Amino acid sequence: MALEAATRDVPRVPWTRRHLLGLEELTRDELLAILDTAERFADAERRRKKRANLAGKVVVNLFFEPSTRTRTSFGLAARRLGADVLDFSSAGSSTSKGETFIDTAKNIEAMAVDLMVVRHASSGAPYLLAQHIQCGIINAGDGAHEHPTQGLLDMFTIRQKKGRLEGLTVALVGDILHSRVARSNIHGLLKLGAKVIVCGPPTLVPPAITELGVEMSYSLEQILPRCDVINMLRIQFERQRSGLFPSVAEYARLFAMDGARLRKAKPDLLLLAPGPINRGVEITPEVADGPHSAILQQVANGLAVRMAVLHLLCGQPGEA
Amino acid sequence: MALEAATRDVPRVPWTRRHLLGLEELTRDELLAILDTAERFADAERRRKKRANLAGKVVVNLFFEPSTRTRTSFGLAARRLGADVLDFSSAGSSTSKGETFIDTAKNIEAMAVDLMVVRHASSGAPYLLAQHIQCGIINAGDGAHEHPTQGLLDMFTIRQKKGRLEGLTVALVGDILHSRVARSNIHGLLKLGAKVIVCGPPTLVPPAITELGVEMSYSLEQILPRCDVINMLRIQFERQRSGLFPSVAEYARLFAMDGARLRKAKPDLLLLAPGPINRGVEITPEVADGPHSAILQQVANGLAVRMAVLHLLCGQPGEA
Amino acid sequence: MALEAATRDVPRVPWTRRHLLGLEELTRDELLAILDTAERFADAERRRKKRANLAGKVVVNLFFEPSTRTRTSFGLAARRLGADVLDFSSAGSSTSKGETFIDTAKNIEAMAVDLMVVRHASSGAPYLLAQHIQCGIINAGDGAHEHPTQGLLDMFTIRQKKGRLEGLTVALVGDILHSRVARSNIHGLLKLGAKVIVCGPPTLVPPAITELGVEMSYSLEQILPRCDVINMLRIQFERQRSGLFPSVAEYARLFAMDGARLRKAKPDLLLLAPGPINRGVEITPEVADGPHSAILQQVANGLAVRMAVLHLLCGQPGEA
Repeated sequence: MALEAATRDVPRVPWTRRHLLGLEELTRDELLAILDTAERFADAERRRKKRANLAGKVVVNLFFEPSTRTRTSFGLAARRLGADVLDFSSAGSSTSKGETFIDTAKNIEAMAVDLMVVRHASSGAPYLLAQHIQCGIINAGDGAHEHPTQGLLDMFTIRQKKGRLEGLTVALVGDILHSRVARSNIHGLLKLGAKVIVCGPPTLVPPAITELGVEMSYSLEQILPRCDVINMLRIQFERQRSGLFPSVAEYARLFAMDGARLRKAKPDLLLLAPGPINRGVEITPEVADGPHSAILQQVANGLAVRMAVLHLLCGQPGEA
Repeated sequence: MALEAATRDVPRVPWTRRHLLGLEELTRDELLAILDTAERFADAERRRKKRANLAGKVVVNLFFEPSTRTRTSFGLAARRLGADVLDFSSAGSSTSKGETFIDTAKNIEAMAVDLMVVRHASSGAPYLLAQHIQCGIINAGDGAHEHPTQGLLDMFTIRQKKGRLEGLTVALVGDILHSRVARSNIHGLLKLGAKVIVCGPPTLVPPAITELGVEMSYSLEQILPRCDVINMLRIQFERQRSGLFPSVAEYARLFAMDGARLRKAKPDLLLLAPGPINRGVEITPEVADGPHSAILQQVANGLAVRMAVLHLLCGQPGEA
Repeated sequence: MALEAATRDVPRVPWTRRHLLGLEELTRDELLAILDTAERFADAERRRKKRANLAGKVVVNLFFEPSTRTRTSFGLAARRLGADVLDFSSAGSSTSKGETFIDTAKNIEAMAVDLMVVRHASSGAPYLLAQHIQCGIINAGDGAHEHPTQGLLDMFTIRQKKGRLEGLTVALVGDILHSRVARSNIHGLLKLGAKVIVCGPPTLVPPAITELGVEMSYSLEQILPRCDVINMLRIQFERQRSGLFPSVAEYARLFAMDGARLRKAKPDLLLLAPGPINRGVEITPEVADGPHSAILQQVANGLAVRMAVLHLLCGQPGEA
């Protein structure tokens, strides 16, 4: 396959960034450089062997919001590349003793740290750090802003399954308003030539989002026949309490993916979901485990994408 | 010693299992293969050097019940063999966001994991996983069902101290009803030819347990002179509140091991306890620290036994 | 520089201790041996490479009080030297199930552990352990007694910035009564020939402390012009509730370091603070980030000092 061959080449652009803060500021060539590098790590056989790209480097997971899956994925990716990994969570940390966010990060950096993987409830927090910190910073999710490695692993999975991104129609379905996953998908997919539709109940789809260059819809039924890919965003039940959607049952009736709805879609529809999924709510078990779903493939690809990002930001050159 | 020599041999049976779920389903030869392999790791000098049996492998501790000692022992054993180790506890995990137990495990498996060490409050949980997961699974305690590596380390310690298991009389004393340690001991010891007596207050010793092939007694005094080994199960104080035994003082008077009781036992009685022990309750300090006790030796042996299990399930052949 | 050259020499005394419990019992030569060894690790370039001094060794962080920065620093230092590191916190541990402190430590030791780094709320706890445990013990803070590696990194930073310790006047300012950092500084600095002044409100400076050989003052204004170094101890707000100082504002007015006060000090005054700092309370932001402050340098030096201690206690000889 031509794509496979291309990935054995050197990256098309020399990588010069120190941070990965969001997909919004990356160029098309930089996005492709990450995806191509990730292909080299994605082959399970090669991933299994311990590599030395980050030997002697220290990667710190600095998570101010709870996370298991993203933190674990970054931790495993860094260890696979030979780095030492340290988990630093906010619970019981010095920030609870009155220390500022930046002072906490500067203190950690002073311990000879090379890369910080940062998750924070405030949009922009990793950008603030990047102005005060010398070591590399990876945004692992900031508020409702961006979650760039999730966007990258979604794009990687689409390209892996469809052979391309250009010209595809990709729908993001659910809570667009609060979703950093949606924002990173939108920025990345548009740059690589896909058409993006955002779809959900009116309370969760802000009209201003069309300014990013996406189509907007309140009806999954209407857009379904046109979609090549649907990315089912997670329902965050805590939003319901705030009155943003009337009931889980009503949401599921309109936006969940079940067998009946699937029959109205293209026969080769690809289904993504960032997880953890609520079985029987936004997706039925037979669909989640069916042939259209790439949910577990996404998790596996997340490891390859994060290895690629870690390698590009601070790996030994020529070691990919 | 003949035993020592035998352990240098290759395992008597080629190891073919992918999982260690319980001692009930292992054959006598498989039990011996684990114990013999553990002997090779038990020598402190050899244990100290870092080995490469599991180099490049990822072992995940997936604990849905709190544990320090078992989790630490598995973590150290895996690191000694060169594996990367990841701790995944249920607190703050995706299962609390509505994800199913099996989905959580499948997601972790998708991150290129080789072995999962699982503890769960529900009997049978690791068996359920084994039906849905491709990677190897080790049961680190499931409800009141089995705790196979604890059973193995108890058997290993008995064989180490007594030179054999066959023909010995081993008593399990305490809360038999809720003890997964008791069940794993019973299955393993009977297969290797020991006689097993279970002993405790009537509320904590279910008569149906005799169907497993053990003798039952409500009086430690009566069985004491016949025992070669006594395994003092831990008193779980939370059971007292549920009315299963009248008072700690009464329990201790009847079933605790103190100096006076010890004088009625065989002079070479071996005392085991899975720990953590309640000094002055089920065992007095002078007995716990005395010459009959192998409590700390059990902890050291636990490391060797877990190294053996990890190696047999996914180590490089010929690297023991 | 003569100092630099000296540090390339072998330690002046052969190191014979198994534990680092406090600076009170160390000789002047032993203190210098640690500081000189730390110099060899302090060069960032050399620190970056992964070393094998502790290859095959297991270091356990046994923390019975919450800590992020000290635990992280020890963990990174041990990993830099090739050790396996295990974090064992008291939350959810066996001590909460009725196990004694010493039994918990003995159980951990039985898992082939080489060094324990112990923090405990009770003064003397690491000394108690040292009487019952065979492996090496490092005191990472015991009650209000000692925090030897913090004292050492303070001394290291002073020597690094001033070229010497002998003849300098060092003030410790703040809550002397409850500060283990103060006690370790006093013992170490006096042995290496510095003059030490303790300074704070009368409720927080016990007059008996002068028996250690330090000068005492209740007025920062009076001692300020004489000081070469000021170590600003952290204000522990929980003390205020117990009535030990009247108000944070009043404390800050008398003992905080701001620009106005700094102008009354020697022009080359060196400012230390163990952190985490309360910006605007005991130190203003412009002073904390200004040219007199070595706060982040202290954190970096902490790594070097802890590598030195770990190496001296159980590293391969000739590998520094």
